[in-house]
Formats: sequence, structure tokens, C-alpha cells
Amino acid sequence: MSSLNELEDMEKLRGLSWMVALSQGLGITMVILMGVWLNTYMGGFAWDGSGKEFNLHPLCMICGMVFLYGEAALVYRVFRQTEKLKAKIIHASLLLLAFIAIVVGLVAVFQFHHKMHITNMYSLHSWFGMITVLLFCLQFLLGFLSFLLPGARPSIRSFYLPLHQFFGGGILTLAVISVISGINEKLFFKYKGTGYSKLPASAVIANVCGLVTIGFVLTILYIIQKKEWQRKPASAEEEESLAIHFQPISGHGTDTE
Amino acid sequence: MSSLNELEDMEKLRGLSWMVALSQGLGITMVILMGVWLNTYMGGFAWDGSGKEFNLHPLCMICGMVFLYGEAALVYRVFRQTEKLKAKIIHASLLLLAFIAIVVGLVAVFQFHHKMHITNMYSLHSWFGMITVLLFCLQFLLGFLSFLLPGARPSIRSFYLPLHQFFGGGILTLAVISVISGINEKLFFKYKGTGYSKLPASAVIANVCGLVTIGFVLTILYIIQKKEWQRKPASAEEEESLAIHFQPISGHGTDTE
Repeated sequence: MSSLNELEDMEKLRGLSWMVALSQGLGITMVILMGVWLNTYMGGFAWDGSGKEFNLHPLCMICGMVFLYGEAALVYRVFRQTEKLKAKIIHASLLLLAFIAIVVGLVAVFQFHHKMHITNMYSLHSWFGMITVLLFCLQFLLGFLSFLLPGARPSIRSFYLPLHQFFGGGILTLAVISVISGINEKLFFKYKGTGYSKLPASAVIANVCGLVTIGFVLTILYIIQKKEWQRKPASAEEEESLAIHFQPISGHGTDTE
Repeated sequence: MSSLNELEDMEKLRGLSWMVALSQGLGITMVILMGVWLNTYMGGFAWDGSGKEFNLHPLCMICGMVFLYGEAALVYRVFRQTEKLKAKIIHASLLLLAFIAIVVGLVAVFQFHHKMHITNMYSLHSWFGMITVLLFCLQFLLGFLSFLLPGARPSIRSFYLPLHQFFGGGILTLAVISVISGINEKLFFKYKGTGYSKLPASAVIANVCGLVTIGFVLTILYIIQKKEWQRKPASAEEEESLAIHFQPISGHGTDTE
């Protein structure tokens, strides 16, 4: 690459660096606000079927479905020079961590409902949340089968890639809808009557956490939709080396690397 | 244009037609469900400061901030052959209708709160809703100044266009967050205690309306992000003719057309 091209690229990517820094600031603030809200104002955490177990639900969901999911979405923008296969593994690993957080978060709320004899799955928040999680699992599975597991035909990959990218942003959008409606719902549960409308510190922190969440998500969506920040498609040699990597696993190759 | 190119274009646009048809089906279903829910199960409509006036709030907001806004977003995809200036006027007119619906919807909820002595602007729904409306107004104003009013420099237009497009989708996303958290909140207000969890017909209709809303919004977002469905940039002659159209108004030209 000529040094002129390199300079142009550096110029272009300076904006990306700032936006990534902003997203990280918002993401960490979002998780801290949620943690402080639940720990200081909502009774803290425990694994005993009480409201303290419920508190793990919003924390795990925002960590998994929003923060780790958003980080996973940034992998191909941030690890630009990293070998494609390694970037794919980082992307999938972050999503696996997200999946674990989501499972813990769902078990926490269902166990709490079970112990407290509260009906499951009636509110719009719960419907949206469950659809979001199911779409996340489907996207994770299809992404794994199409892009990480060897054997998927290039025609399938190139057909599925734009759908995977669109639903990547779509599922993050659904996740933030679930988070905001969930925080709103919890505050109405906690402050029955007019308590919420007096905006005690707890309600302000939770509301601000909701605003920071949408800030984080919009930053992520902005970064991933911007064409000039997208990672260049893998070169023919890199795709070839990926294929060689995979061949022994799929059993179609003879290379033993 | 050669007939081969025309055939290719028609092929590409067949998918667009289906997606637009789907979006229209979802959009109309969304508005009907909201109307039926409010009219049949929530007491109907009136302009008297009562709960019937409140009912105009969700109806106007979903019509303005989601349905008309979504229709406006589609204009450059649907009116592909229409002169650019006419398409801009249709886009701006739909947004003006949306703005009127939004104002009526906001007046309805503030008058209802005032008459019932209910505090304004404390819930996360209200914070999100107000931010969404303010961003809508800012986007509308900046869009008008940059793209419809003559005099904006081409460099400003080309700088602002991708931001206008991103915030177009972003504001629609914020709108759907406000709608879902609003429906959820209203159902908890209406069915105090365990009423909502028994999922009466009213709650089911409202929940389904929420799901249809996200279906409509995702369809719109899918259509507008797909590169091959974007309207081709205006030709040099068309931009020139737009400039001539505008010159008399801006006072810089001599053409009286």
C-alpha cells in the first residue's frame, strides 16, 4: 500500500476511533448505572428466588443483550488488521459470553416469578424480550453454521451476509426496546401510586441509565452502518488460507495444518 | 437505457415491491389495532380532558411518529421515477402531517394530565418520547434548510445527507421504543394488580399492536438501508433544473419559471 493511501486511511479511521471511544464510555457508564441502581437502591443481589435474584435479570440482560452484543458488533471494525478467522472467533466468543449472561438473566426472572407465584410472559416487555432472545439464538446459530463452521457454500455466505448484518442491528434495536420497557415497568412496580412521579434518586438513575443505553446503541448502529469504516473484504489469499484452515475439520481437505 | 438494463432493474425492484406491500399491510394493521384497542376497550375518544382525550395521545403518536414518518422514509424508494423536487415535496408534506398529528397527540396528554392533576414528564417513556419529538423537529428543520430551501451549498448537503439518513432511521427506532414502553405502561395503569397478567382481550390486542409496530418499523428500516433499492442520485441536468426552479425564490436568478 502506498504511504499516501495509508495516510488517507488513517484520516478516515480517526473518526472511527473517536466513535469507538465514545461507545465504550457510554457502554461502561450504562453497565455501572444499572449495577449501582440495582445494588444501592433495589436491594442488591442474591440467588435465593427473592427480589435480589430478580435484580440479576436486568443486570445480566443489559450486560449480555446490549453491552457484550454491541462489543461483538464492533469486532470487524476494531480488529481491522487481525486475521479474519481470529476476528470471527473473537466475534463468536463475545456472543457466547452474551448468551451465558442471557441464560443466567432469564433463569433469574423465571425462578423469581416461580417462587413469588407471579405469572410469566404476559407483558409486552416479556413478549418483546423473549422474541429478541429467540432471534438472538437463531442469528447466533445461523451465523455459526454459515461463517464459522466449514462447509457453507460461498453463495450461501454472500446471500446470508447482508441479512446477518441487518438482523445484527435489528436484534440490538429489539434489545434496547426490551431494556427500556423493562426499566419503565420495574419503576412502576416499585413505586406504586405516585412515587415514581416524584422522581426519587433511584428513578432518576434508572431513567438516565435508559438514556445512556440508547446512546450506546445508537453509537454502535452508527459505526456499523458507515460504509467507509467497514473492514475490507478478505483478500483471495486470506479466504484461501481460511479454507485450508477449515478443510481438515470438515473432512474435505488433505492439509493437516 | 438498454432493455437488458431495464430488465435487470425490474428484477431488482420486484423484491422492493413485495417489501413495500408488506410494510403497508403491517402499517395499516398497526393503526387499525391501535384504533380498535382505544375505541372499543379503552373508552373511545373525546376532547374533554378525560381519559377519552388521553386516548388521542397513543393514536396520534403512532399515526404521526411511526406510520406517517415511515411512509415519508419510503418516498425516495417508491417514487423512483418522479422528479426529485416533487419527491422532496411529498417527503416533506408527509412529515408535516406527522408533525400535526404529533402536536395534537402531545396536547391531548398534557391537557389530560393537567385536568387530572397528574405529574408530567417523569417516566422513562415520557423522557424518551420527548427526546424523540425534539430530534424529529430538529431533523425536520435541518432537512428543510439543507435540502428543500434553496441556497444550501452542495458541500453542506453532501456532508449532512448521510447524517440525515442515519438519524432518519434512528428517530424511527426511538419512536418505536416510546410506543412500546407507552403501551406497556398504559396496560399496567389500566390493569392494576394482576389484571394484565390474565391477558384479557384488550391486553392481547395492545400487545399484538406492539409486535406489529416493530414489524412495520423493521420492514421500513430494511427497505431504506438496502443499497440496491436506493434511488439513483439526481442527474446533472436534474440538479440543474432544480437549481433553476429555486433561483427566483432565493432571489439569485432571473428565470421566472
